[in-house]
Amino acid sequence: MTAGTAAHDTRSRLLDAALKLFSKHGLEGTSMQMIADALGVTKAALYYHFKSKDEIIEAVALPALQEMEQILDAARTKRSRGAQIDHALSGFVDLIVRERTLIRLFNSDPGLRRLVNQTLQAPRDENLNTKMKTVFAGADPSLADAIAVHVMSAGLAMAGGAPEFAAIDDDTLRQHLLDLGRRLLGRPRR
Amino acid sequence: MTAGTAAHDTRSRLLDAALKLFSKHGLEGTSMQMIADALGVTKAALYYHFKSKDEIIEAVALPALQEMEQILDAARTKRSRGAQIDHALSGFVDLIVRERTLIRLFNSDPGLRRLVNQTLQAPRDENLNTKMKTVFAGADPSLADAIAVHVMSAGLAMAGGAPEFAAIDDDTLRQHLLDLGRRLLGRPRR
Repeated sequence: MTAGTAAHDTRSRLLDAALKLFSKHGLEGTSMQMIADALGVTKAALYYHFKSKDEIIEAVALPALQEMEQILDAARTKRSRGAQIDHALSGFVDLIVRERTLIRLFNSDPGLRRLVNQTLQAPRDENLNTKMKTVFAGADPSLADAIAVHVMSAGLAMAGGAPEFAAIDDDTLRQHLLDLGRRLLGRPRR
Repeated sequence: MTAGTAAHDTRSRLLDAALKLFSKHGLEGTSMQMIADALGVTKAALYYHFKSKDEIIEAVALPALQEMEQILDAARTKRSRGAQIDHALSGFVDLIVRERTLIRLFNSDPGLRRLVNQTLQAPRDENLNTKMKTVFAGADPSLADAIAVHVMSAGLAMAGGAPEFAAIDDDTLRQHLLDLGRRLLGRPRR
């Protein structure tokens, strides 16, 4: 094992442990000490990897946002608008279902919510919000389509992360969210 | 003017002023002193009406929740399921459009969000969440219908309160949200 791999392993173990604690105690209820204890390391060792709890929170949320970005980029390589939408929607729904714990945390915790919103709206070449809208509704969407995309993305994410649906198995939840997404975006039934 | 009316007027002036300040500075950024100053009264006079800022926040949000409850009760008096759903949906959308400022605040501020969630889930005869589900999807809804109602209510509220749609006039926003709600609930196009 190279030093690089070992550092990568430590980092992902650390993020796993942090997400578990965040889900259980909330962001505010989780201290750096608690994370260090869960990993069996000293607080100093933890600070070697992350300068603050905010940095850990950001690192926990970031991979899902980056993955959504990749899904949208892949969707754009499809030829027809229909194929682009279908690819983006099924990727979005897969991500929601897989990251339910993170979404539940996001929905209940102001800190993470603010952070994710900042990332979504970050002024880059094209931020994630704009990219979502462009892939799902085209470069110059009608108001009706822009609102439909907003209802779709917020609605599916909120429902996917809702505690009342936490016991539903992944496949079932995926099918239902996909059907509703297609209905909202005016895609034909599969 | 009776003493009762005067007290009622003071209370609603106070809540109007508080909502304006909350929207501008956030819940945490607004102090009791700022609310008192906006009304031109002393802080002592303010505390005569409300014991804490949390009480004010609750009082600001409560009327909209109570109104939703009334809309759902009225919907239940309709004979057909279709008429019940149509009444509840158009009432819900009207409320979203009228209370856009409050929803925007709710979406951005953890304090209000927690409070509204507590109210929504309050264990009474039947809490507002359950009542929504029953009116929109029936007393013993399929999983598909339960998820559709969740996507509809969260999605319409989030989109209705989204800053990016703040400039849309009420009628236009209402039509779009209504169309999307009908689509999600499988109601025929008007």
